[in-house]
Amino acid sequence: MHRTQAGHVTVEAHRESVRRLLAPLRTPDRIERLPLLAALGRGLAADVVAPLDLPPFANSQMDGYAIRSADVPDGGTGLSVVAPVPAGAAPPALAAGTAAPIMTGAMMPPGADAVVPIEQAVPAAFPAPGVPATVRLPAVPAGTFVRNAGSDIRTGEPALGAGTFLGPGQLGLLAALGFTDVPVYRELRVVLVTTGDEVVEPGTPLGAGKIYDSNATLLESSMRQAGLHVTRTGIATDRPGELAALLRRHAPDADLIITTGGVSKGAYEVVRQAMEGHDVDFYGVAMQPGGPQGIGTFDGVPVLGFPGNPVSCLVSFEMFLRPALFDLFGSPAPRPAVRARLAHALESPPAKHQVRRGTVLPDGTVRLEGGAGSHLVSALAHSNALIQVPEGIDALAEGAEVEVWML
Amino acid sequence: MHRTQAGHVTVEAHRESVRRLLAPLRTPDRIERLPLLAALGRGLAADVVAPLDLPPFANSQMDGYAIRSADVPDGGTGLSVVAPVPAGAAPPALAAGTAAPIMTGAMMPPGADAVVPIEQAVPAAFPAPGVPATVRLPAVPAGTFVRNAGSDIRTGEPALGAGTFLGPGQLGLLAALGFTDVPVYRELRVVLVTTGDEVVEPGTPLGAGKIYDSNATLLESSMRQAGLHVTRTGIATDRPGELAALLRRHAPDADLIITTGGVSKGAYEVVRQAMEGHDVDFYGVAMQPGGPQGIGTFDGVPVLGFPGNPVSCLVSFEMFLRPALFDLFGSPAPRPAVRARLAHALESPPAKHQVRRGTVLPDGTVRLEGGAGSHLVSALAHSNALIQVPEGIDALAEGAEVEVWML
Repeated sequence: MHRTQAGHVTVEAHRESVRRLLAPLRTPDRIERLPLLAALGRGLAADVVAPLDLPPFANSQMDGYAIRSADVPDGGTGLSVVAPVPAGAAPPALAAGTAAPIMTGAMMPPGADAVVPIEQAVPAAFPAPGVPATVRLPAVPAGTFVRNAGSDIRTGEPALGAGTFLGPGQLGLLAALGFTDVPVYRELRVVLVTTGDEVVEPGTPLGAGKIYDSNATLLESSMRQAGLHVTRTGIATDRPGELAALLRRHAPDADLIITTGGVSKGAYEVVRQAMEGHDVDFYGVAMQPGGPQGIGTFDGVPVLGFPGNPVSCLVSFEMFLRPALFDLFGSPAPRPAVRARLAHALESPPAKHQVRRGTVLPDGTVRLEGGAGSHLVSALAHSNALIQVPEGIDALAEGAEVEVWML
Repeated sequence: MHRTQAGHVTVEAHRESVRRLLAPLRTPDRIERLPLLAALGRGLAADVVAPLDLPPFANSQMDGYAIRSADVPDGGTGLSVVAPVPAGAAPPALAAGTAAPIMTGAMMPPGADAVVPIEQAVPAAFPAPGVPATVRLPAVPAGTFVRNAGSDIRTGEPALGAGTFLGPGQLGLLAALGFTDVPVYRELRVVLVTTGDEVVEPGTPLGAGKIYDSNATLLESSMRQAGLHVTRTGIATDRPGELAALLRRHAPDADLIITTGGVSKGAYEVVRQAMEGHDVDFYGVAMQPGGPQGIGTFDGVPVLGFPGNPVSCLVSFEMFLRPALFDLFGSPAPRPAVRARLAHALESPPAKHQVRRGTVLPDGTVRLEGGAGSHLVSALAHSNALIQVPEGIDALAEGAEVEVWML
């Protein structure tokens, strides 16, 4: 595995390890077909080819007159107005020297090759249906205000590739192509265990030395948004035997186990201890926060051990699990990566990839929210972006351009 | 209402009209308390003040030794190692001349004011508990690697304001503050009606002149993602009497009616006709696509009439309804607005605010997807951003910086 000079695993190498850990879950029997709306937020499990042209037929882009463009240079004497073409109808061919009132989206009559908007006609209003009338129109080139069949996508062309995240635009395209359902990967079932003798459930009394569990809420909500099915076990104590027993109980129903805390090099690292005898590695990733990470399998079930601080948990999810899931299953959507200019100077440990929290402002700058500390959950709650400061950088000046991931 | 020189309503004026239309829905009886996880994606309905400090107590940022920093200049002779401080415990006061092994997150013993990481200690490993030992440590200033009580947020400070969108970070903060539930605005109930004789349901045969309904899928999925409860009526015909009857049937169960199509100036505009006698305005907004818009009330229920092309529908939702809902109810989340450089030149009608579709690339450029046509649903499905080209601009060069909204 690729390591930095300081002996840490690189961010990219750990992300790839997470991807490899989860890759065996991408099997054909995990594919299901769902109605379009039920597939919102899932990943497409197979390539989709367009079964028809879009638009399916040449149609008008405007309310106006469908004409044969070659007629119009002589149109000074006026074109005879024929029966209008309403949307949804299959009109008869357009005779030479005539103009057919046509509505936006309506099929071009055979023979017609251009549309003149009603505003450019003289008179600039449609005649009453059935009343003989003529209209004078300006000359326009063939193709004017015509949407040709297949001009958006043609029959047989790739419409969406396997692994595409299905948001409103993608589902809209599938509907436009006539699909009612779509193959997607089933939800992964995640068992989430927060650990620590210092951690208590919100809503209970807070004794001295205790903190409320925010990791479970942070991660469960992140994973729910990402389309994962989450089971929370409650807070595990710092007794490794109890944690191991709890994991053994839940493993049969899990595709993935996520733990928080107990993965660094202290004297009491419950997750490390509970995983002894299982195929789980614990190492440092060259990242701040979120450096200590565990990865492997417990009773054959993939397990990721995130660090214990809330910001470290969120950063671990965003930097490793989200990209791996998108790469394998097309869901959740990747965070949009954009460029922004730092509103303040910052310092970063050069041996690590630093992830700071900030707010991207409409002027294209990004304001830091709080310091680098991984316990700053209030600062996190006031951020809309993760600022990426790559390894090798020890300082950035105000105004420096950085990559930010929009939360 | 503010109009452009060409007589169109400005984008800002229409957005404000949508906000005013929906503002009466923001009433105290629409507030409910939900468990944190159930509130994911909702808007906070009241200010929240921190009921405790975060962190609640001074604690260690590292695994190491808690010390009295004034002791250490003399520490060349070594400090006596006392009992370790595990996380979750309330330790006794630290005696002068001693050092307490302390784990990340554990409470600082009274009297201790700094932490020296274990890696800087000699020896660089904790002694076995109960075995008398001394340790040599470098001098450090008071405060080193200590997270002070309240350094993230203090008791009584505003934690989150009313109208905040509740994502993982915000819910994580509420959990850290000990909350188990939170006041939010109830879901709005939207009735969604797509119209047009040319429109048929996906999965049915596609006759000549017909297209599949993609608007319903595009808008229902957008609105579901935005936390709205959507009821689809099916596709309404172009007969105004039928549409009016359908709306009358659904209005009593709706907070908002959304229609698509039938709002421009053609000869057959079913929504305009069905709304006759109701308090609904139809006008042109200075925007492309999505110019024709209807707004008002039908049987006292707010109604928005979106145009009929799929891209126009999505743009109408994103430009008007999403911002108004966020402004009033704190949900859905606003689209992140960022700056990007155009990968191609573009042209725009100067009298209108143009909204193009594009893909923001990691290098900070944005590539146009398809042309300006509002029927280009395949191009939309391959976009991740809306490019904003304000009124008054007729052309932008390659490399020009633009505002984009990330989808």
